[in-house]
Amino acid sequence: MAKKNNSHSTPTIGVDLGGTKILAAVVDAGGNVVATAKRATRAEAGPEGVIERIIKTVEDALASVKMAKEQVAAIGIGVPGPVDAGRGVALSVTNMPGWVNVPVAEMLRKWQDIPVALTNDVRAACMGELMMGAGRGLHHFVSVFVGTGIGGGIVINGQIYEGARGSAGEIGHMITMADGAYAEGGGIRGGIEAIASRSAIERDLRAGLAAGRKSILPQLMAKKDGALTSSVLAGAVEKGDALTIEVLQRAAHYLGLHAASLINAFDPQALIYGGGVIEALGEWMLGPIRETALQHVINRARLDEVKIVAASLGDRAGVVGAALLARGALQKEVTK
Amino acid sequence: MAKKNNSHSTPTIGVDLGGTKILAAVVDAGGNVVATAKRATRAEAGPEGVIERIIKTVEDALASVKMAKEQVAAIGIGVPGPVDAGRGVALSVTNMPGWVNVPVAEMLRKWQDIPVALTNDVRAACMGELMMGAGRGLHHFVSVFVGTGIGGGIVINGQIYEGARGSAGEIGHMITMADGAYAEGGGIRGGIEAIASRSAIERDLRAGLAAGRKSILPQLMAKKDGALTSSVLAGAVEKGDALTIEVLQRAAHYLGLHAASLINAFDPQALIYGGGVIEALGEWMLGPIRETALQHVINRARLDEVKIVAASLGDRAGVVGAALLARGALQKEVTK
Repeated sequence: MAKKNNSHSTPTIGVDLGGTKILAAVVDAGGNVVATAKRATRAEAGPEGVIERIIKTVEDALASVKMAKEQVAAIGIGVPGPVDAGRGVALSVTNMPGWVNVPVAEMLRKWQDIPVALTNDVRAACMGELMMGAGRGLHHFVSVFVGTGIGGGIVINGQIYEGARGSAGEIGHMITMADGAYAEGGGIRGGIEAIASRSAIERDLRAGLAAGRKSILPQLMAKKDGALTSSVLAGAVEKGDALTIEVLQRAAHYLGLHAASLINAFDPQALIYGGGVIEALGEWMLGPIRETALQHVINRARLDEVKIVAASLGDRAGVVGAALLARGALQKEVTK
Repeated sequence: MAKKNNSHSTPTIGVDLGGTKILAAVVDAGGNVVATAKRATRAEAGPEGVIERIIKTVEDALASVKMAKEQVAAIGIGVPGPVDAGRGVALSVTNMPGWVNVPVAEMLRKWQDIPVALTNDVRAACMGELMMGAGRGLHHFVSVFVGTGIGGGIVINGQIYEGARGSAGEIGHMITMADGAYAEGGGIRGGIEAIASRSAIERDLRAGLAAGRKSILPQLMAKKDGALTSSVLAGAVEKGDALTIEVLQRAAHYLGLHAASLINAFDPQALIYGGGVIEALGEWMLGPIRETALQHVINRARLDEVKIVAASLGDRAGVVGAALLARGALQKEVTK
């Protein structure tokens, strides 16, 4: 069993496991980031190898503020895929080989025998925004993270809503264009992820390039080893690249319709947008999303109370949320 | 002020105001229907005239079990449109002339000075199914009513979720076919109501007839003064009418995709389908809806736990729910 450390001043660790990078942070009881460290994921190393790299990253973060692992009260970790939070098992992880039913909590407790809270990366980020970011003080909101995929979190009465099987908030798979584009990587046909995620945007841009459209993209991508990252998108928009602007405006239109669906179904106080695409393009994307969304809201009363805003923690939302979830789990243990 | 009658054995009245008919019921403390009465709405009479007809219908129901209005503890009424529940005002009512900011509660209290709970008709029906119907014992479900429009109710942790502005559950306006059909009667373009409601089905069938498709529909409609009711649809399906089957199968397909969006976003224990179209066609519609929905659910774990079922109270759901809401409001007053 995990040892219990009930000092509230002890920090917790938050980890955000991504397909390309691992981010770890030491977070104090007030939700403030004390230290961070980062490392490439090297997913090809498999679960054992990746867990080792996670531990090294956590140790780097601790070392940077001269802390020993014995001073850590709990670890929270968000992974990009569905989890069994009760058993601390990652059921599957998007785009990472070998990640099927990986007992993440058990593996991390070999490093240090403290409570481990395992969650989905997007839910961790939603928790971060709820407690420390753009969702602070709100009771009802939906977070929408537009990155490689599209994920989200639903906050109802000030708490993240988990649903009957723990998978509420899979809003990237709300079908926005029936019979529309197939999703890459296991998503749902016609779901907003298949239409407007960074992957979908990249698919559409590459199709444009393959069709012979002139674009500055190949030139910008060459500087990133051929990768079409969110910052490449932002660079192309800045240069007035017609193909990029066209594809992104289309994505914003559908994100706006999806936003309207969220507002009509949930009637939230706010939609909070984060993820690489939004971080890189900001209001340039949010403006059209907001305009399209509000045109399609059925309840026109007090429409000015419905906010469509950017997340405020950036890529720290995940580590902050994971660390706070770990603290929550710890407090539950203490009160047992 | 309303008099308070805190005897729990006293019945409450539930009223379901529809565009074509008024249904009233006397409902006991256990949620059982003791008596009902029904009357044409005659919307052309305007709010004053319709309220008079509501009162007559309530009196008919009471008279049928030899009860006096003094024995009634409270009235609940569901109207087809948004309401300000706190003030008891119907903000607007679909397809009923003159219904703008109508003080329904105040008008009904002139008949008998007792508490009046005003709500939306669909939310009343959701409450009925939650307490006495297919939702009994469930903690998380979404009800979907497919009639002239498409409305719904979201139940979270055993309670109807109202949202920030009181309009959560407008699931008929989740955009399922981006840039798709425009909605009649003020709905949202491409929303499931614009694609698969009885109105949308009727639009598509009339377009088919206008295009010269052979169909038994005109013959069946002639028996209903030309109206294309849900029972006409069921009759045409029974006769194997190709046009009707084609249009309804298309509606079921899109309802299935919409159902998948609901499951992906909310992760409910069940979706509960009611409304005229579902009541008339039952499993013939629900089967394809279920099949399409489950194919498009992202979380495949414990998929057999996600139920797609018919509502069980039929057109009594609204009156039962309204009467129970009235009882709830009464108990709040008593405990003040």
